Amino acid sequence: MSCVTLTTDFGEQDWFVGVMKGVLAVRAPQARVVDLTHGIAPGDVRAAAFALLNAYPYFPRRTVHLVVVDPGVGSARRGLAVRTTEFDFIAPDNGVLSWALERERIRSVRWIENEDLRLQPASATFHGRDIFAPAAAFLAAGGAFDRLGPLTDSPLLLPWSDPSVVNGGWVGEVVYVDRFGNAITNLHQPLSMAEPVRWLLHWAPGAHCALETCYSAVGKGEPVAVVGSCGFLEIAVNQGRASDQLGLKIGDRVELRPDRTTARPQRKRPKGP
Amino acid sequence: MSCVTLTTDFGEQDWFVGVMKGVLAVRAPQARVVDLTHGIAPGDVRAAAFALLNAYPYFPRRTVHLVVVDPGVGSARRGLAVRTTEFDFIAPDNGVLSWALERERIRSVRWIENEDLRLQPASATFHGRDIFAPAAAFLAAGGAFDRLGPLTDSPLLLPWSDPSVVNGGWVGEVVYVDRFGNAITNLHQPLSMAEPVRWLLHWAPGAHCALETCYSAVGKGEPVAVVGSCGFLEIAVNQGRASDQLGLKIGDRVELRPDRTTARPQRKRPKGP
Amino acid sequence: MSCVTLTTDFGEQDWFVGVMKGVLAVRAPQARVVDLTHGIAPGDVRAAAFALLNAYPYFPRRTVHLVVVDPGVGSARRGLAVRTTEFDFIAPDNGVLSWALERERIRSVRWIENEDLRLQPASATFHGRDIFAPAAAFLAAGGAFDRLGPLTDSPLLLPWSDPSVVNGGWVGEVVYVDRFGNAITNLHQPLSMAEPVRWLLHWAPGAHCALETCYSAVGKGEPVAVVGSCGFLEIAVNQGRASDQLGLKIGDRVELRPDRTTARPQRKRPKGP
Repeated sequence: MSCVTLTTDFGEQDWFVGVMKGVLAVRAPQARVVDLTHGIAPGDVRAAAFALLNAYPYFPRRTVHLVVVDPGVGSARRGLAVRTTEFDFIAPDNGVLSWALERERIRSVRWIENEDLRLQPASATFHGRDIFAPAAAFLAAGGAFDRLGPLTDSPLLLPWSDPSVVNGGWVGEVVYVDRFGNAITNLHQPLSMAEPVRWLLHWAPGAHCALETCYSAVGKGEPVAVVGSCGFLEIAVNQGRASDQLGLKIGDRVELRPDRTTARPQRKRPKGP
Repeated sequence: MSCVTLTTDFGEQDWFVGVMKGVLAVRAPQARVVDLTHGIAPGDVRAAAFALLNAYPYFPRRTVHLVVVDPGVGSARRGLAVRTTEFDFIAPDNGVLSWALERERIRSVRWIENEDLRLQPASATFHGRDIFAPAAAFLAAGGAFDRLGPLTDSPLLLPWSDPSVVNGGWVGEVVYVDRFGNAITNLHQPLSMAEPVRWLLHWAPGAHCALETCYSAVGKGEPVAVVGSCGFLEIAVNQGRASDQLGLKIGDRVELRPDRTTARPQRKRPKGP
Repeated sequence: MSCVTLTTDFGEQDWFVGVMKGVLAVRAPQARVVDLTHGIAPGDVRAAAFALLNAYPYFPRRTVHLVVVDPGVGSARRGLAVRTTEFDFIAPDNGVLSWALERERIRSVRWIENEDLRLQPASATFHGRDIFAPAAAFLAAGGAFDRLGPLTDSPLLLPWSDPSVVNGGWVGEVVYVDRFGNAITNLHQPLSMAEPVRWLLHWAPGAHCALETCYSAVGKGEPVAVVGSCGFLEIAVNQGRASDQLGLKIGDRVELRPDRTTARPQRKRPKGP
């Protein structure tokens, strides 16, 4: 049984996601369809790229990852299909696949141009239904990748902002704020952090917290930095909302620095699993 | 494998949708269950009717479309089952199926009254779980349509507001505002629009925009009218929210008129797919 | 085909639920995965426990109910697996299973400690992905329950607040407010209510409404008490929001008392199904 994931900015109010699933049910009736998220803010290509980056590897081999965050629908932007050694990806050519693809070994990149695979007539406002879902269904049903359209080597790529090394630490930025208000940064493990140095994550003059192993290493309502579930350092508030309480937002500069002013106290570490 | 779609106003917070899926899993374990939407505003029968209208044809033949937007639950309103040449529909008899059925060839209409098919005891507040999901599961599992209950020819029908022809144009109204703030009207293609006339969609004195082929035919933040993905003309703002920016809401009068004051400029059309 | 339900506080914005489904698709490809809800307020263990209580019995026998509302993730709190005669349950040991388990016949309770079943390396911030989804997948794929970890008899239990009998009536409290603004109480049927007494539900001095059989027994916009779909008495406003209109919130005291001041009027009862 093949698998198709869906990532869109279509929200939960309308019928748009449901219709795409209808197209998949008609054209790839055996495929398992899984929602990654439909809660991407309208047109937020970077948020979708980040969600995909963090989710795509957890799916079965040869899963088709279908992303429709498409502010340029109906314009001259093309449709993109990418086959890697592990997965297939279908999306508008607006960079939304960029960061996932940086981690993949790419075998083929094609424009989606085969008009025979589209719903007829294709609308100018809903390519998710008329072009992208049919392309994903075609692959999920075992269709040949090279039938989607011509090869290309010029997909649009979004730059990833790499942290920089400064004074024995790293400078990065907040790249995502999640549902819990955790501010996820672009500082990614493994950073070469020599133990037993104590590390502090700074987000404003005089505002910082220690890097700990889990949220509950600090008291309820206190800020804490942890290595999040996708390897990125994040600033959280234990059982609270860091984004609101600390005023953190996407693009904010953060800096990870060794704590040179105090000896590391012997903290009680949680024993947990 | 049969298919059941769900359209409700149950939202995402509670367990109501999940429980209906449990009933379907018990009684029709082979059926594929697809969410059309659960984000209908509480009790908004017209919004649900419009969502269903736009989504139902994209599903496999003999899909059971189950709609539970049911402000009259527990009252004297009946349950309705409709078989058409292509699909089955299950819903409270409050008109929610009206506009989809206008496009279908109807073969049988029955009240859902067979108490043997219900969960026992049936509650007075959740017929989605106790009556409608069991009826849909019964059909999805191959049950005989005529066992649901007696024939009827008097289901409640909601009137569809047809546009009227005025001065060589059409007058209609906004019937839906989607997640992107697009104001969808009841002006539906094909309208007999003689090219090469340029058309303007007016929504208030002095407020209008041109009918174009896609959102990005105008600059970012500018209003534009397009034929939306379901054939209805809609007013959008390219990468913005027409409903907020232009103050459009359901029921607002709109008028599509030929532009007689200016020659049509030679616009650059986007080449796009 | 086995069934796995998901109940979380992960919301709809991020990729967290999708990733758990990816893990399930890899490890239990034949399982049907059903969302109970992901709209639990962050860290609200009691709301999740109440949702589970009301939903879990409607699923096929041997369904694995997976609950991840986990404010203590990464701390010393353990993971819990419970097998009953009908179902399996997987959750953090924070009491979220308590009220469902009170209605079940328990066969085995184990800590989830088998590190071989985890994703490697397991994060300290997302046990839903790394520990709980793998444990649920293991069971759904037919794995032996006793391989999850050692037996325990000390899971954390949340007390259920039982109504008390006062003056021939009952005193209870609001325990949940649903999407429609209905205020659900802990007063559960069957209460031994001798007909033909008329009952009033009081929520403040001078503020009360009658217990009726359905929402529409009263006029639009009027308050009404009904026995809800899960057997709990709830205060509603017909086609309105009781929580907003009457100012009801979780923890508010309510009292069900016979109406001794008036003879019961002969109400017209709705005939409905």
